[in-house]
Amino acid sequence: MFRFEILKQDSGRGPRLGRIHTAHGAVDTPAFMPVATQASVKSLSPAEVESLGFRMIIVNAYHMYLRPGHEVIERLGGLHRFMSWPHPITSDSGGFQVLSLSRTRKIKEEGIIFQSHLDGGRHLLTPGKCIEIQEALGVDIMMCLDECPPYPSTREYMKKSVGLTSRWAKLCKEAKKRHDNGLFGIVQGGVYPDLRRESAEGLTEIGFDGYALGGLGIGEDSDQTHEITESTLEHLPAEKPRYLMGLGKPGDIVDAVSSGVDLFDCVIPTRNARNGTLFTSHGKLVIKNARYAEDEGPLDEDCGCYTCGNFSRAYLRHLFMSKEILVLRLLTLHNLSYYGRLMSDIRESIARDDLSALSNRVKFLGGTD
Amino acid sequence: MFRFEILKQDSGRGPRLGRIHTAHGAVDTPAFMPVATQASVKSLSPAEVESLGFRMIIVNAYHMYLRPGHEVIERLGGLHRFMSWPHPITSDSGGFQVLSLSRTRKIKEEGIIFQSHLDGGRHLLTPGKCIEIQEALGVDIMMCLDECPPYPSTREYMKKSVGLTSRWAKLCKEAKKRHDNGLFGIVQGGVYPDLRRESAEGLTEIGFDGYALGGLGIGEDSDQTHEITESTLEHLPAEKPRYLMGLGKPGDIVDAVSSGVDLFDCVIPTRNARNGTLFTSHGKLVIKNARYAEDEGPLDEDCGCYTCGNFSRAYLRHLFMSKEILVLRLLTLHNLSYYGRLMSDIRESIARDDLSALSNRVKFLGGTD
Repeated sequence: MFRFEILKQDSGRGPRLGRIHTAHGAVDTPAFMPVATQASVKSLSPAEVESLGFRMIIVNAYHMYLRPGHEVIERLGGLHRFMSWPHPITSDSGGFQVLSLSRTRKIKEEGIIFQSHLDGGRHLLTPGKCIEIQEALGVDIMMCLDECPPYPSTREYMKKSVGLTSRWAKLCKEAKKRHDNGLFGIVQGGVYPDLRRESAEGLTEIGFDGYALGGLGIGEDSDQTHEITESTLEHLPAEKPRYLMGLGKPGDIVDAVSSGVDLFDCVIPTRNARNGTLFTSHGKLVIKNARYAEDEGPLDEDCGCYTCGNFSRAYLRHLFMSKEILVLRLLTLHNLSYYGRLMSDIRESIARDDLSALSNRVKFLGGTD
Repeated sequence: MFRFEILKQDSGRGPRLGRIHTAHGAVDTPAFMPVATQASVKSLSPAEVESLGFRMIIVNAYHMYLRPGHEVIERLGGLHRFMSWPHPITSDSGGFQVLSLSRTRKIKEEGIIFQSHLDGGRHLLTPGKCIEIQEALGVDIMMCLDECPPYPSTREYMKKSVGLTSRWAKLCKEAKKRHDNGLFGIVQGGVYPDLRRESAEGLTEIGFDGYALGGLGIGEDSDQTHEITESTLEHLPAEKPRYLMGLGKPGDIVDAVSSGVDLFDCVIPTRNARNGTLFTSHGKLVIKNARYAEDEGPLDEDCGCYTCGNFSRAYLRHLFMSKEILVLRLLTLHNLSYYGRLMSDIRESIARDDLSALSNRVKFLGGTD
């Protein structure tokens, strides 16, 4: 069922247009996936997410496993039905969350032993279990269990870790039972280009429906991120989709697309919105700034979202200062609208062979801040 | 501009159908006004409030005065434009909030001296100031400044208070400059029927566009509420709208409508929603109850709201347990949808001379709990 089609690419390198076909419909790439960690894009209804042009979201298997439980979701007919989202869903394996959220965790050959961040209960997450959870959810793209070491990690540690991630990836592939979805391997290796290469080649040898770049944007500087992304892509099969995990400032996205990345997810548009920081066609806007107290204009006069069509900066600032929860939604709607437009501008620019103009514009606006 | 039309009433007493005409359109009565204390019906967009059938909301002048400031709103073109609500707006004078929210307050003949609950700043709210604020907001129905003594209060205190509230009401009327809105007097007098009568007659003598019953539902038992409501209405002019302030359990509304009340506001549907307590056609539902963990059904199969059309109790419970903010909105939407339907059922029942059947049904469901 899972299939990736390349619609336009001049060579094996550089920006490309594609289409991911899944059992729940197609997604045009480059694509951005809004983050629905706990089966909800924070503050938005699925109808709104859809209205902004998004056709794939990403949920977190670790969270779904702990609450409400993947078996509950399976009995209720799967995640699409559970959250009323009829389009494709990707799930992150949860490896990253186990390491960042759980109180204590121990990495062993067979998997990760961890305590739930909710109730302290002990769990063992193995590659097999990781696939079992994601297949129960019924998602369209599953991710392998990986170890994502912190930045910086020593070369020695990272080398061992890359080996473990590859062995887990193989077990994940063997554990896969369903045929209606895709499984992506996750390339690790930190900031060491040769270990990234080793990881990419190891995963390619096993063979996956797509390849993700994990362990980036976790502390290294952004030039390094870009270099590692670019050099790693050379060692991945061009005909498969490439997904840069967790990284998504507008400038990062444009850079990564230029290198040939197809898929993104990031909490920045939604989290920034809840903190009152907005993306606009004139750059960043911080809504609590006193200068907006009597500003009748919309957040962005070039934006067609419901928020910009109906509310002034003054009103949004009032809601924000008054801690009125409606503002979380209105600002999230706006920021995701900006991202929806960014991705469609990117796709149009690639079609016109003119991505560099968009890239300059985004960076001029401080999109990489 | 402000005009009340009675469409159906068999005698001077009992339930009636009416229509309030304002500069921003008409409202069929009996009507319920969702509460938008700080210029937002918590969690809902104005488009959603409208879609549920509501045509009038109530904001709080005390809150608007303190933040963002009534003059700011006036400069921005008035409250309707500020909050993007094109239909009628009522504002509460803020007398009740000054007494319940501010840190220290002192009631004097000229008004209420109080400290802001936001920054501790000292303010004097006089009848004239109260009207100035509401006229700056540009609302369709303004309320007089009143004193709402706590329950219980002595007869002696209440008698003095009723006198003060009447004197303030007269000053409010004299301070009114705009001709495009209505001003309502607020009947006080606690649980003393003769003082309620004195208050009602005093206000009627001054002459207002409508009359509100204040100081009810603040601790007295509900039989008393109903008796006081009924006996007070006899002393108010039948041709003017009557508004029962702050009281709005479904059973209370049906009872008050039976006595001839036209207008309601209450935080119950919105606040209960945020606490996870829902109104359904089978009675109350507490979403966090474990019995709903795998319940595929909607909150209420007789409800046509977006929430019931798209989400199961299991998903809503998951969002609630996970503290996902989307749930506040989905549950608010449902509860206000219930209230919208309740009010339209009430109006249809009055049209058919059959309010008692609806009343029995609402009470059987524990609507007065």
